Amino acid sequence: MQALLVVAHGSRRAASNQEIFDLIDILLTKPTYYININAAFLELATPSISEGIDRCVENGATEVIVLPYFLSAGRHVSEDIENALAPKRLEYPQLIITIKPHIGAANGMAEMLLNLAKG
Amino acid sequence: MQALLVVAHGSRRAASNQEIFDLIDILLTKPTYYININAAFLELATPSISEGIDRCVENGATEVIVLPYFLSAGRHVSEDIENALAPKRLEYPQLIITIKPHIGAANGMAEMLLNLAKG
Repeated sequence: MQALLVVAHGSRRAASNQEIFDLIDILLTKPTYYININAAFLELATPSISEGIDRCVENGATEVIVLPYFLSAGRHVSEDIENALAPKRLEYPQLIITIKPHIGAANGMAEMLLNLAKG
Repeated sequence: MQALLVVAHGSRRAASNQEIFDLIDILLTKPTYYININAAFLELATPSISEGIDRCVENGATEVIVLPYFLSAGRHVSEDIENALAPKRLEYPQLIITIKPHIGAANGMAEMLLNLAKG
């Protein structure tokens, strides 16, 4: 029972956070086997990462796949997300939490830029 | 004679800026008709947007397609990039400068996240 948690930085600007929720809405239209797909924010917005993990567990997830929605592998990706997850690993010792690479490192980014240039 | 200019925020962390240059290197391996493809940074790193435009012109570009490498449409995208470009529009009145939507709004972002989750 896998759940997806898209973790973004979070912004003081509501419209920026809304872009993440809109992206989740698009993800939810896709055929997947995830029991749920949610957003969480590292800071400045809610739900927090802690709340995001809680939501996955409440929905019956046995595994949460964390997708860092960051373009570069800075401290937020390398340390802060894991630091936010550490207490949840203790709280839910049975839960498997897997952190994937940040989106900036994803295959296909170059092609997406070229498509954007042509569009 | 089109050139691509990928505009990222820029970071105090050299490795984060290097990720942008690495992405440019990947773009340069793709078959495209652009006379050059360069990176520029809004702040904290070089080349600046001004220098990036200069480089395109020096290479013979008559049009520069600016790709904002930002996940959300905050002030950086909506105002700061255009503000950095404004003096270049005056400096090179013949040059066509086109700003595309930020990468976070690109088609295919949802699919890329799902691929990242499976990878």
